[in-house]
This record gives sequence, structure tokens and C-alpha cells, in this order.
Amino acid sequence: MKLEKTYRPAPLAFERLPDEEARRRSLEFLELMSRRRSVRHFSSEPVPFELIENAVRTAGTAPSGANQQPWTFVVVSDPAVKEAIRQAAEQEEELLYRKRASDEYLEAIEPIGTDSIKPHITDAPYLIVVFEQPWSYAPDGRKHKHYYVRESVGIAVGFLLASLHAAGLATLTHSPSPWGSSRRSSTGPRTSGLSS
Amino acid sequence: MKLEKTYRPAPLAFERLPDEEARRRSLEFLELMSRRRSVRHFSSEPVPFELIENAVRTAGTAPSGANQQPWTFVVVSDPAVKEAIRQAAEQEEELLYRKRASDEYLEAIEPIGTDSIKPHITDAPYLIVVFEQPWSYAPDGRKHKHYYVRESVGIAVGFLLASLHAAGLATLTHSPSPWGSSRRSSTGPRTSGLSS
Repeated sequence: MKLEKTYRPAPLAFERLPDEEARRRSLEFLELMSRRRSVRHFSSEPVPFELIENAVRTAGTAPSGANQQPWTFVVVSDPAVKEAIRQAAEQEEELLYRKRASDEYLEAIEPIGTDSIKPHITDAPYLIVVFEQPWSYAPDGRKHKHYYVRESVGIAVGFLLASLHAAGLATLTHSPSPWGSSRRSSTGPRTSGLSS
Repeated sequence: MKLEKTYRPAPLAFERLPDEEARRRSLEFLELMSRRRSVRHFSSEPVPFELIENAVRTAGTAPSGANQQPWTFVVVSDPAVKEAIRQAAEQEEELLYRKRASDEYLEAIEPIGTDSIKPHITDAPYLIVVFEQPWSYAPDGRKHKHYYVRESVGIAVGFLLASLHAAGLATLTHSPSPWGSSRRSSTGPRTSGLSS
């Protein structure tokens, strides 16, 4: 969004942590995040929507180029929409695996053992579709270019994933080709077993 | 890095959280992250290196395209190196503000009130220089292309910033032009006052 001239920096509520407490929190966060895995097998059990909402709000606190917040998060839970997304993704991925992908790409993903069949897209209770906003309209109707869009959206997705993981949810970050500039995260309660 | 054929998925240590506990942790993380600000005024007080190390380790747990982990984090504390980086950044930014930047860009950053003078680069006890790895060498000496590099590095930087913030440190994410593909974070104890 275009910043208004009325923009004022937000006050910093700062509490200086004693070194020992800083170390404890830093280590605790490392231990939490070290337990995160990309998961491709999801339970379809419902998940409280509030967890998804909190994650999107957390993502929205990310820093961004010129504070333009060049992102849109769309949460999908409608089974019909999830099914349509799955079909589109599987179709694209089949073309990717069979035709479009270079040998080098196929070699890179080979150890992960993925293929074009994506039941997790319909199993997971929520898909979070992340869009980049390369530009926006200002109130005067002019188009405004956004800056450092992919970096900014990446950081916001980092915050999103960290929030969902902190809430005990499993996620998969997924960029099906040729949707190169979009990103999707499926999220749901983890199934027990292996991630891969 | 090129994945070895010996790659095996890491086991998922999973504990299913009761809804109330999930909500509590989700909200707690939102509240923590909502207090983060981009800060341009740093104290030069020393910061325990362990906090920086934990943050980089946390960043390294981020998901990435084909798990290629296409990032390098360089931590700078040497005053002479910080000074050299500051001089280079100020020189580039002066050219940016005076010559290179479009009116549209200058208008976008105008409300934030930044300029080409960057004392925070030498004040902050640490700079974390983040490099993208668009490709790497495999053990056989061939170049391997990396996939979804900017998205992956963005997510890792999101994890880095979340860790530093959890540890009570202030950060500034900074991409001086024309270092378009690099990212720097300064980090240090927050000064009291306003961020902007």
C-alpha cells in the first residue's frame, strides 16, 4: 500500500533482557524451530481458525521494503476450492515432471521423493495462498511500484511458518511450477510418521 | 549444497497440542512479534555472541527449494570491517538518493525519513551479511543451479529476525542499492526511543 504522509514511526516498547534470560529465550526458540519439518502427510482433522488468523497477523508484522507490506494471504478451507487447486497443481506438476523440468531439477528433487500426486492439498484443513504485490494503486489512482517484494514476502512467510509451528501445526511450503511467483502453505495437524 | 543420494528424511518428533495450549502459544508468538520494530539507532554495547550464533542456526532450519539451503550468513564484528561496509553503503546510498533512485522510489521511502548517513552500521555490535547462493558446486565439480533461492533465503531471514527479536535484540533489515541481491541485518541492544 502507498504510505500516507501521515505515517509516523510506531513507538518502541523496549525491555532490556538480562544476558541469561536472553540466552534462555534464544535457545528455547532454536530448540522449537529445530523440531520443525516440512510435512507432506496431513490429517484432515479441523484446526481452530484462530491459529491461522494469528499466523497471518504475525506474518503481517514483517518488515518490508519501504514498509509497503507487498503481500496478500488468502486462507482456503472450502473443500471444492481445495480440490480445484489440487487438480490444477497436479496437472502442472505432471507436466513439470514429464516435460518441463530439466534433468538438473529432477536430480535436485530426486532424494526428496516427491511426485505429482498431492493428496496433502485436499487433506490439510487449510491452504494459505500467498501472493506477492509487485505494485499497488495509490489513492490518486496511480500505480506504485513495490520494492524488494520477494525478499519481503519471504520474511513474512518465515514469520507465518514460525507461528504455525509454535502453535503445533505442520506446514508444507510449496511453489508449484509454473506458479513461480506464488507460494502455498498447507497446514494441518501433523500426522505421526516421517516428513519427507 | 548438492544433496547426497544418502539423504533420508528427518524423523518428525510430534506432540499434538490441546487446542487451548495451541491458542495460547499462537497468541503469545503474535504478541511477541507485534512488539518488533525496525530500529535505526543502536547501542554499541556488546551482545553475547551465542545469541547471534543461535539466530543463524535457527535461520538454517528454514525450508528451502529442494532442501538446497542456498544461503550464507557472515557475521561481522570487526570495527574496521564494519567501517568499510558503512563507507561502501553510504557511498552507494548517496548515489542512490542523488542520482539513481526514481522519483517514485524516493516518494515511497520519504515518510520513513531515511538518508544516506548510516551510523547504525558501525554502532551495532554485529552485522549479519546474508548472501544468496544461486548455484553451488557438486562433489563432482559440476555447477548445480539452486531453486526458489530468493524465497528460501527470505524465509531463513524471517527465522533469523524472529530469533534475534525473541532474544531481546533490535534489528534492521537493509538492502542497500545496488546490492540488490544481498541483505544485511544490523543487530544490537535496542536504544530506547523511536524506531523509524
